[in-house]
Amino acid sequence: MIIIKDIPKIQELRKLQSKQIWGFVPTMGALHQGHISLIKQAIKENDVCIVSIFVNPAQFNDLSDLAKYPRKTEQDIGILEKEGVDVLFMPEAEDIYPRDFNTIVKNLNLSDQLEGMTRKGHFDGVCTVLTKFFNIIYPQTVYFGQKDVQQLLVVKKLVYDLNYNITVKGCPIFRDSNGLALSSRNEGLTLAQIRSAAVLFQSLLLAKKIVSKGEKKSAIIIAKMEQLINQVPSIKIDYIAITDVVKLEPVQDIAGGVLISLAVYFGSIRLIDNIEIIP
Amino acid sequence: MIIIKDIPKIQELRKLQSKQIWGFVPTMGALHQGHISLIKQAIKENDVCIVSIFVNPAQFNDLSDLAKYPRKTEQDIGILEKEGVDVLFMPEAEDIYPRDFNTIVKNLNLSDQLEGMTRKGHFDGVCTVLTKFFNIIYPQTVYFGQKDVQQLLVVKKLVYDLNYNITVKGCPIFRDSNGLALSSRNEGLTLAQIRSAAVLFQSLLLAKKIVSKGEKKSAIIIAKMEQLINQVPSIKIDYIAITDVVKLEPVQDIAGGVLISLAVYFGSIRLIDNIEIIP
Repeated sequence: MIIIKDIPKIQELRKLQSKQIWGFVPTMGALHQGHISLIKQAIKENDVCIVSIFVNPAQFNDLSDLAKYPRKTEQDIGILEKEGVDVLFMPEAEDIYPRDFNTIVKNLNLSDQLEGMTRKGHFDGVCTVLTKFFNIIYPQTVYFGQKDVQQLLVVKKLVYDLNYNITVKGCPIFRDSNGLALSSRNEGLTLAQIRSAAVLFQSLLLAKKIVSKGEKKSAIIIAKMEQLINQVPSIKIDYIAITDVVKLEPVQDIAGGVLISLAVYFGSIRLIDNIEIIP
Repeated sequence: MIIIKDIPKIQELRKLQSKQIWGFVPTMGALHQGHISLIKQAIKENDVCIVSIFVNPAQFNDLSDLAKYPRKTEQDIGILEKEGVDVLFMPEAEDIYPRDFNTIVKNLNLSDQLEGMTRKGHFDGVCTVLTKFFNIIYPQTVYFGQKDVQQLLVVKKLVYDLNYNITVKGCPIFRDSNGLALSSRNEGLTLAQIRSAAVLFQSLLLAKKIVSKGEKKSAIIIAKMEQLINQVPSIKIDYIAITDVVKLEPVQDIAGGVLISLAVYFGSIRLIDNIEIIP
């Protein structure tokens, strides 16, 4: 595996390999099985698999959250070597955002609801850094996990609106044996908390069951989910939302497919999860 | 010359010619000698010269200004054929901005002063459409006139900040025999107005002369320019500004190189001009 920190070096390599099909998996490191499933798919489908590890300061509205985000570079490199990744791009923040950097790429309709409510500017940071990465790397395909479903929708819209010749693939959520969605943020949980956090997926499955029994009212479904989650007193709900799957606008009465998404705080750790339901 | 309206057709052509060096001259049509000088340079320096004609609605804050912007497609095509342009890209607004388009690319520091004061959102429209054009066309070099000097600086910053592998070339202002900077907007002036409008360049030359004689106070220089321009009563000054040449921030006392730029209204026609001065 080639490890590259310099932007011009990646550009040089891409020029040399201009005939190759590159598949790109952007990450913030602290890799888990969810990332690995994306990487395996990228390796299978492309000539070259490039992974980035970059804890993007622009997508953190909370500096303490940025500071405590897990970093496990040594371990990550071992994982990527073992999986057979071709290129690891690991830029420095000061190279991505030089001192006078002042350009922003913004999706106007998908950025302010759900995650954007709590994490102001988060998706502007995501769009801006990915625009840069796309211009540096020229990937044919880019891979994202469906756990960050709003991010996946935002990136698809970014690529469509800005005419990038890139396929955006969303890959299934990877869950532990209790159903907890894998996340680098789980690193901050105790084993007991990890067991309790299974209630998040249980609440999504409960919603699915209620809908399959004919319930159409989002308010009733959300209330039942809240009731279940609140049985774990140390979990504080940030939001539970039932929305359409394109514009992420709230749905009052379920008629077609919907996305149920949630975010909670477990102490200082924020966890998200979602499920798509077709009644 | 190949004339292409469809975005996918340009992308196909670019793929076929992926080894070629493409030089790109974005225009809004109503071509004049200023454009032609850019085109001649692009033809000389590249394998393929591609010109776009697109009156970009996103960079007009004033709909009546958009409506009355001169359109001379037939004549433009004749000019481009004669010059030996290879590809003319002439997309429709509804293809560039589909109904659900909602992404914006914004320079945060260079967009609100000078032209951005009067034309709110103008440079966001410029940055957004150029990001799209760059992703569709993959030019190696892009050419802009120095008359729109703020646009030139904004585009250079856009390319730098977003890591486009593109060289941005600024080409000298093309002036008529009286010194009036050529502009598609001059189309709306009477011959008498065109003669009077020479006062704009005269005021810039006056400023240069005053500076060369040792004057350092911007306020004094601007006052003398105003005095000269106001001798044409039908011209209404929008702004005269003396700024640095990088961040376009006002300079009170001239020490190094400065940019003197101005915008005026001649009836409903808005004209701009500028000069760079090194004392």
